[in-house]
Amino acid sequence: MDHFEVRDYDAAGRIGELRVPRAGVTVETPALLPVINPHLRTVTPRALERDFGAEILITNSYILYNSDKYRERALSEGLHDLYDFSGAIMTDSGSFQLAEYGDIDVDTPEILSFQRDIGSDIATPVDIPTSPTASREQAERELDETQTALETAAGVDTGDMLVNAPIQGATYPDLRERAADHAYGTGLDVFPVGAVVPLLNDYRYAEMVDIVAAAKRGLGADAPVHLFGAGHPMMFALAAAAGCDLFDSAAYALYARDDRYLTVRGTEHLADLEYLPCSCPICTDHTPSGLAAHGDDRREELLARHNLHVTYAEIRRVKQAIRQGNLLELVEERARAHPAMTDGYRALLDHAEQLERTDPTRKSTFFHVSAESARRPAVGRHHDRLDRFAVDADTVLLTEGGNNDRFDETWRLKPPFGPFPRGLSKTYPLTAQVPNRPSRPAYEAAAEGVDRLVAANPDVEFTVGHFGWPASALDHLPERVDRIDLSEEDGG
Amino acid sequence: MDHFEVRDYDAAGRIGELRVPRAGVTVETPALLPVINPHLRTVTPRALERDFGAEILITNSYILYNSDKYRERALSEGLHDLYDFSGAIMTDSGSFQLAEYGDIDVDTPEILSFQRDIGSDIATPVDIPTSPTASREQAERELDETQTALETAAGVDTGDMLVNAPIQGATYPDLRERAADHAYGTGLDVFPVGAVVPLLNDYRYAEMVDIVAAAKRGLGADAPVHLFGAGHPMMFALAAAAGCDLFDSAAYALYARDDRYLTVRGTEHLADLEYLPCSCPICTDHTPSGLAAHGDDRREELLARHNLHVTYAEIRRVKQAIRQGNLLELVEERARAHPAMTDGYRALLDHAEQLERTDPTRKSTFFHVSAESARRPAVGRHHDRLDRFAVDADTVLLTEGGNNDRFDETWRLKPPFGPFPRGLSKTYPLTAQVPNRPSRPAYEAAAEGVDRLVAANPDVEFTVGHFGWPASALDHLPERVDRIDLSEEDGG
Repeated sequence: MDHFEVRDYDAAGRIGELRVPRAGVTVETPALLPVINPHLRTVTPRALERDFGAEILITNSYILYNSDKYRERALSEGLHDLYDFSGAIMTDSGSFQLAEYGDIDVDTPEILSFQRDIGSDIATPVDIPTSPTASREQAERELDETQTALETAAGVDTGDMLVNAPIQGATYPDLRERAADHAYGTGLDVFPVGAVVPLLNDYRYAEMVDIVAAAKRGLGADAPVHLFGAGHPMMFALAAAAGCDLFDSAAYALYARDDRYLTVRGTEHLADLEYLPCSCPICTDHTPSGLAAHGDDRREELLARHNLHVTYAEIRRVKQAIRQGNLLELVEERARAHPAMTDGYRALLDHAEQLERTDPTRKSTFFHVSAESARRPAVGRHHDRLDRFAVDADTVLLTEGGNNDRFDETWRLKPPFGPFPRGLSKTYPLTAQVPNRPSRPAYEAAAEGVDRLVAANPDVEFTVGHFGWPASALDHLPERVDRIDLSEEDGG
Repeated sequence: MDHFEVRDYDAAGRIGELRVPRAGVTVETPALLPVINPHLRTVTPRALERDFGAEILITNSYILYNSDKYRERALSEGLHDLYDFSGAIMTDSGSFQLAEYGDIDVDTPEILSFQRDIGSDIATPVDIPTSPTASREQAERELDETQTALETAAGVDTGDMLVNAPIQGATYPDLRERAADHAYGTGLDVFPVGAVVPLLNDYRYAEMVDIVAAAKRGLGADAPVHLFGAGHPMMFALAAAAGCDLFDSAAYALYARDDRYLTVRGTEHLADLEYLPCSCPICTDHTPSGLAAHGDDRREELLARHNLHVTYAEIRRVKQAIRQGNLLELVEERARAHPAMTDGYRALLDHAEQLERTDPTRKSTFFHVSAESARRPAVGRHHDRLDRFAVDADTVLLTEGGNNDRFDETWRLKPPFGPFPRGLSKTYPLTAQVPNRPSRPAYEAAAEGVDRLVAANPDVEFTVGHFGWPASALDHLPERVDRIDLSEEDGG
């Protein structure tokens, strides 16, 4: 796809460049699209651009289509003048309203034409968002309709406006994968993963991850993925690591309206805050009671600005982590904000092999910081390498410490990776920093590594030197491997 | 101690109020004391007060004592005018220089008098900071000297100036505890835990936690504890949870001088940043290249301000977490910033019983978010309760789901806590949110809970209903307990 170029990868996350021809701009991803409701402008698009660096927005074309106040202005002035915004503008269609109210009075060709006429840069057809509670039968039936809409959209003359190809399929991974494959084949441009908002509202992050992973399997690597409706900064890192490039947020404004305050650890109510746990310009200049004392409109604006600062800072943090090669370390932290985020991270690691395909082989130092770390892609990749290591010696010591001339060769042994030849000590990921007290999964993963090396070298005699490994790891070693408990040895 | 009052607890962390009579102010703790070097004023005390809300600073009296430029001015104007600061000012003595250079030319009575004469609000005697590499013999010998200095200090007339009683003892917990007990008995006012900077510089957070825990055992609960030299925001939550009330930071300025950039996840070099991963007023108004383009002095000031914003925001975040009762949830996140922080958290949990004594029995919802969560104080407290539960029935089902009329009573069973009567379902910590897929330690802790209840009720028949617990948990159950694997049952 010539309008999306990937620069750096980390897990399935990437820094990308989305060229938006009609807007004449290139948007760097991951990117956040603040939702603009024409009727409620808490923070103006001009302020979003100037104060938050917004390069792209999203607004609902169906609201404009039905708006006495704005329809004609949108058609005559165009969105960029209507909103006073010089970046890219994405529009969604009536699909959200379709999901909410059951019916809308416009079809794909009509709404696409309207979006083109009002100057949208990235438009959306009328797909059928399928609820996570839908039966298999309903999900398949609605997916057929969505696919028809996409095919229709592909046939409409949209000039240089880009077009979204939403991916549906409810919570059925095979349907999501099929939907993605079909969408990618339409030649349309951007790939929203739709109908996830009910999941996110219910903290069902593990299912979100499974759905994204399924969609990614059906799409090409050069397909930009938009997690439609996902705007809470707490889950950006997780969703980015799964391969999402675009997010959108109405939360910044809706939450502000309710005195709700975003953080990367969740959401607070202003009334519960005795201190403002944030370094943004709003929070370094106010106290909670000071904010509460403002009139409603001013307080709403200040909270919306805080929410935007937190949101955009997390996008920058995610991008910096991708650039440095420690996105998964950021996910490790965010995974502790809520048990559902822990589930989400564990679900992400279920897809480690899929993530491994794009995970760079050289990155920042691997930090082993939890039981989950043992399942990271770099560990599985090392084990796969061990399958292919032909050891050219008769006796090999695999040890956590020290050498021993008794053996032809001495290799290092490091949880969670397992064994490796000393020559690899300075290469990623074997430069990993691990706690002095790793948890059981780290030792078990190291034992798995031993297993793999031993199985690949049936004629070599291996001995493992360990500092008091737990039984669950030692039991995992092949029987024919000797063990030396170095923690019991008295020197030499 | 009538100058320190504790308001809220969370683990061993607390919100406190330190009354500083000579300054006529009360400082809320945990608090951060920025270090002011009179010769290098990157950010002025006035700006610290106005822009960061600084209520208290620290400066080195020995530098002033030996300064041609400032000694006389300090004596004639007093520190508050010299620094143009209206809050509290703590001074340290020459101990740091003693540790660095091996000797200083002033003793405790002299330097205390000097501190009083220049208007210090909280002064420090000349203690002997003992290196973490010191032998036991050296640590004991130097502790004797420190204790002599404290006793001397207690006899000096310091008016209403408060006096620090530093706690030494190197890395020997029993010495630290003894030192703390002695210090508390002197009647002096604030209790710095000294000579931890070398540990912190080497990321030895587990040892820092063990040292703080030891000092806390020797001190009264009303003794304010200052972790001397600890200023990196990454570890505030951990140190606060261990019971530290005061921190000081020279890092904000020293790091800025070297283009080093603080975050709660560690330290970055400006040259490595392509994006600024922060929401502070500096970072929302610049790019990395924009910062780099400034002249050295301006860039240093901007970076110092960023560093201060991050630091003060984390103090607010820690205080808010204590207020809400979710400080340990914040520690859970920070523990993933570096493997040494993971070790630090695990060391903290080794002291769970000690933390439990002050941990409130009613708090915010317990979030089980890692293998470590199973060792949190609230879990151990629940197990202790189970030791005292006299069950008044013959047959009891302890189950993860459903009821069964076969049994006299049905109790709930919830990892990591274990069994509890249904009447407690809505009380902390049993309202805990746990992942759909808890890790093994959670199940094992639940099995430990079953163990305790069963041992306390030898005449009752217990049955455990579980959804496919791992073998390591099931093996932990007493033999006489029946097990039903509910994941294999077909209804009813």
